[in-house]
Amino acid sequence: MLGKVISTIGKAGGDMGAVDLVDVNRERVIRDMIVNTRDEDHGKSIVSAVKRINGVKILDVSDRTFHMHMGGKIEVANKVPLKTRGELAMAYTPGVARVSKAIHENKSRAYFLTIKKNMVAVVTDGTAVLGLGDIGPEAALPVMEGKAMLFKEFGGVDAFPICLATKDVDEIVRCVKALSPGFGGINLEDISAPRCFEIEERLKKELDMPVFHDDQHGTAVVVLAALINALKIVGKKIGKIKVVVCGVGAAGVACTRLLLRAGVREIIGCDRAGTVYKGRTINMNYIKEWYAEHTNPERVKGTVADALKGADLFLGVSGPGVLKPSNLRVMKKSPIVFAMANPIPEIMPEEASRYAAVVATGRSDYQNQINNVLYFPGLFRGVLDCHAREINDEMNMAGAHAIASVIKDHELSPDYIIPSVFNKDVALNVSENVKRVAYETGAARREPHLQEWR
Amino acid sequence: MLGKVISTIGKAGGDMGAVDLVDVNRERVIRDMIVNTRDEDHGKSIVSAVKRINGVKILDVSDRTFHMHMGGKIEVANKVPLKTRGELAMAYTPGVARVSKAIHENKSRAYFLTIKKNMVAVVTDGTAVLGLGDIGPEAALPVMEGKAMLFKEFGGVDAFPICLATKDVDEIVRCVKALSPGFGGINLEDISAPRCFEIEERLKKELDMPVFHDDQHGTAVVVLAALINALKIVGKKIGKIKVVVCGVGAAGVACTRLLLRAGVREIIGCDRAGTVYKGRTINMNYIKEWYAEHTNPERVKGTVADALKGADLFLGVSGPGVLKPSNLRVMKKSPIVFAMANPIPEIMPEEASRYAAVVATGRSDYQNQINNVLYFPGLFRGVLDCHAREINDEMNMAGAHAIASVIKDHELSPDYIIPSVFNKDVALNVSENVKRVAYETGAARREPHLQEWR
Repeated sequence: MLGKVISTIGKAGGDMGAVDLVDVNRERVIRDMIVNTRDEDHGKSIVSAVKRINGVKILDVSDRTFHMHMGGKIEVANKVPLKTRGELAMAYTPGVARVSKAIHENKSRAYFLTIKKNMVAVVTDGTAVLGLGDIGPEAALPVMEGKAMLFKEFGGVDAFPICLATKDVDEIVRCVKALSPGFGGINLEDISAPRCFEIEERLKKELDMPVFHDDQHGTAVVVLAALINALKIVGKKIGKIKVVVCGVGAAGVACTRLLLRAGVREIIGCDRAGTVYKGRTINMNYIKEWYAEHTNPERVKGTVADALKGADLFLGVSGPGVLKPSNLRVMKKSPIVFAMANPIPEIMPEEASRYAAVVATGRSDYQNQINNVLYFPGLFRGVLDCHAREINDEMNMAGAHAIASVIKDHELSPDYIIPSVFNKDVALNVSENVKRVAYETGAARREPHLQEWR
Repeated sequence: MLGKVISTIGKAGGDMGAVDLVDVNRERVIRDMIVNTRDEDHGKSIVSAVKRINGVKILDVSDRTFHMHMGGKIEVANKVPLKTRGELAMAYTPGVARVSKAIHENKSRAYFLTIKKNMVAVVTDGTAVLGLGDIGPEAALPVMEGKAMLFKEFGGVDAFPICLATKDVDEIVRCVKALSPGFGGINLEDISAPRCFEIEERLKKELDMPVFHDDQHGTAVVVLAALINALKIVGKKIGKIKVVVCGVGAAGVACTRLLLRAGVREIIGCDRAGTVYKGRTINMNYIKEWYAEHTNPERVKGTVADALKGADLFLGVSGPGVLKPSNLRVMKKSPIVFAMANPIPEIMPEEASRYAAVVATGRSDYQNQINNVLYFPGLFRGVLDCHAREINDEMNMAGAHAIASVIKDHELSPDYIIPSVFNKDVALNVSENVKRVAYETGAARREPHLQEWR
């Protein structure tokens, strides 16, 4: 019977994992089997196929991903014990009163004597979550928990999800400002454009701590890192390339800004209405007005395909399948394609490779994954360690070079322009370089002597 | 030389702990010594005394309490590993998208699939912290971290400190409502009266989750628990006693409300201006108007001493030393004194014992410590487990009885009316009884089947 079940699962395309014997008696055998499936529907079809076997009864079906999420993926843990009256008297009353008094005398001591030293708020309003859109703060929570996990695992940074039940820009700004005392930095996440620009700008101005919208700057920094290495492979200079940015949302705008900052001179942005140019009237907003002002000097009109004529880099931060392989034919020699729409890229890598010299996506199952996790854990490790009051462009530029330089020139290849997310050198290199530039640019606060609180 | 140092420390009143040898050579010996002191000044005087010994050099002095607080006392920990691509794909993209979709379809699934299941926000504005007053949100943070530790240690509840940089009631309410999606309950803490009453009331009304102001209800519940047992000792009925409440702030008002609910008929409240009575005009506010309306039916005027005539219980939630031993003489036979001002009680237990049959304080170094930690961890354990939408009076009454009943009748004595904070039976008994009453009163949400998300 076990053979019959396993072969049925195999025929249905299921990938068998562990099989455990749960209980056995004369009448029946109970087994626990793990089966990897492509997706939920595939899982259901395998269950139906097994159900149809005569003499088999399915007692329970569970989903590993959902099981992993039961009760949430993070917890609050005590760093010091609380088992004796003595420990209680130090961590809480009466001992804690002396620590509170010391901070009351000098607020900056909170950076040494509280969780503020290592704590980042991961703030969202749930309006632009993954590819799912405006799904609300509760549904955004598992994503923010995942983000917090990445902060801890890759940067040793404590991060806590704050999912806000408001979409009002003023209220979001007020709320984040109000809860800022307990945090050393703010990571904005999955807030829809163009609201995200205003929220970030205002918080940066009004708060004396690093505020970072990862969907913008995280993406931009890792894209720049990948571009630095890709240009080495195709032998082109950054000041001489022409870039087409497809998608003028949070990521597209931030990538454009950072690429301009890095020396790119020719950029054309495209959205659903075609190229963005000065004087365009449809589908505009204040950030696109800025965009039109600072890019596309020749006011090229038309579609992405039109814009791509003579381009060196296609940078996709839009939606699935917007690019046909034939569109790439009109690009310059040795074109580079970063197709980062998730989970389905603007063009599939196997198709893009027919024309492009270097191809990268946001996916882990292809070469060259452009993944924000390469930046934000190391970035916040660095800014928290030097008590930075902000994250400036220079720091982000240094971050991009830090990521790129993890791959030595002799290791570079068209399939290896960006390090693996599991490469431990990345966060270390990022944090060291970001911190160095934070000190150079005055973004870091001078480290006060620890003796100060004595 | 070691002997000389140790005897100097002893003469200066220091209590020697461990001594470690750090390094030794021909010229000198370096030792690390732990010395317990009464307070900071005492520590400084010991250091000076040792400094004066010829041939001794002090290399460094540090303070254990401050050391314990370095970098904060809590951290965010990952509950599931994140070491492989497979784990990354389940905890974050693309796997997490299915979990988010499931919650988007039905928000209540957040109680199963996210940290909301076990997470409480410990919210303060830093306006009434311990005995320190309005010290601000940063200085309040070490206290809130300590509170979060107590939640975890005694209730297995995850709690996260939210220290707000605003004192505006409207803004606090808006802010807590906005950040509520990620939490299963709200614990308000150290917010000054009478603002705390309005904030709690509005949040209770506007949020569909437990909102609990510990300084009010935590104190009230543990006081009631202590009173239940004290009355057994003096052989009095709760409906027949006269109570004087000294201090009409957050704790005093809440204690009065719960005592009335528990059957006490005669209560007189006192503040700095004397007894509170209907028609009083000085030092009133809206909550004292309520107080005057519901207590002191005979409109007794005068001082605490006047109010105490014929009283059975003195309940102090005010300031140090407001009561003279002679004041207790006018109370009824076998009076009970709960003098809970911290760290210095309204009357010291050794003095109160000359007249009182039962004495309790808020201090751990005397018998009968009335400590909120006996309630809130078990309470939130219970309400989180049954997805309660509120905490009602019935639940708080059940909590008080649950705490009191941990001490069996044959164990009761004037020095043992309230269990130790380290008694593990307390939280368990509280959570079980609170949960039972939550189901009975309809405060608990019906537990949906886990299969719902499949």
